[in-house]
Amino acid sequence: MKKIEPTKRTRVVREPHRGVYDRDPSYAILDEALVCHIGFMVDGQPYVIPTLFARVGDIVYFHGSAASRMLRHLGAGAPMSLTVTLVDGIVLARSVFNHSINYRSVVVLGTATVVDDVASKREALEAFTDKLLKGRWGDARPPTENELAATSVLRLPLDEFSAKVRIGPPIDKDEDLELPVWAGVLPLRMAAGAPIPDARCDPKLMPPRFERFERV
Amino acid sequence: MKKIEPTKRTRVVREPHRGVYDRDPSYAILDEALVCHIGFMVDGQPYVIPTLFARVGDIVYFHGSAASRMLRHLGAGAPMSLTVTLVDGIVLARSVFNHSINYRSVVVLGTATVVDDVASKREALEAFTDKLLKGRWGDARPPTENELAATSVLRLPLDEFSAKVRIGPPIDKDEDLELPVWAGVLPLRMAAGAPIPDARCDPKLMPPRFERFERV
Repeated sequence: MKKIEPTKRTRVVREPHRGVYDRDPSYAILDEALVCHIGFMVDGQPYVIPTLFARVGDIVYFHGSAASRMLRHLGAGAPMSLTVTLVDGIVLARSVFNHSINYRSVVVLGTATVVDDVASKREALEAFTDKLLKGRWGDARPPTENELAATSVLRLPLDEFSAKVRIGPPIDKDEDLELPVWAGVLPLRMAAGAPIPDARCDPKLMPPRFERFERV
Repeated sequence: MKKIEPTKRTRVVREPHRGVYDRDPSYAILDEALVCHIGFMVDGQPYVIPTLFARVGDIVYFHGSAASRMLRHLGAGAPMSLTVTLVDGIVLARSVFNHSINYRSVVVLGTATVVDDVASKREALEAFTDKLLKGRWGDARPPTENELAATSVLRLPLDEFSAKVRIGPPIDKDEDLELPVWAGVLPLRMAAGAPIPDARCDPKLMPPRFERFERV
């Protein structure tokens, strides 16, 4: 495991036993999450905006329109937070007070920089695309020069971050254990319905195999 | 529909056709999401922290330990953002550039206040508990005075917010429609596995019915 040293800003203070300071499990959480929430400040107001992202090695790429206010602001060097959260279950205790959820989250702090060179931009777009569906980069039409120019990509280094994880059963007080209340965990995960072909999709084309998600 | 007037800060600028400025669909998004992401600033650094929350009428409650730095900070009147995001599907276009996800998100801006009176605190805890599982408030042991005192509850009014929604198929350029690439949407939703009883749970107690989630 590659340990990371928490800073005063990333050390988990509430429920400190839930803090995780290793790269491998933190990266696994980042890789499983489709969406991150980016926090930044404009004119004294914090904003939290969801967006797609992908990790490549020790950096996180995120992107948007070159005209996006958020990306212009962050590309100019404003401090930011990038947070992902996976909900793994509902934790039902015997007491109201000890209800909770099981989750895995990562909070990254830092400053992003604009990705200028075309090779890194392509690397980022490949990572975004293959995160949505493994192998998709090789199947779909590649971006044109104009499309690349219309996309702003930002790079956030994974230097200062920590993960927080709750797993396992409810924790009730001893005196509550005999209460006639069912207690346990309802596991939750993202699952997929049947693929919906676009109306103009040639019916002879087979949908890709979506192995990542269980089917409902 | 109860229309809301977007402010300069909440009007959707990117992809403006995705902006939703009605209370009912925005509240439905807030009610479906288990976790929100709260953004705030400390010493020049934005933080984004996931937490549980619940809506009651035109306010959102969120809570945590009375010793939480985040709650102390926000209770003192720091401006904040509260954002929820539901991922509804992966949108596979014929071109890399037009890949996307279907989602529903709400961004709330404002300032929270500490909930002091016990009646409102109970209302909030009931909302949190019944959000995890409908009817659970009536089944589990109610909070004691000490447990109520150990819980900080904050109230954020739903005054300034907007929703953003992407639905539907991929949007490819006309010249891409003939490419031999499957295009469409993979619908995603949270689903539940089999309930896991706590090891000390009386096996004669039946698990509750979890009607909200499909089973995988």
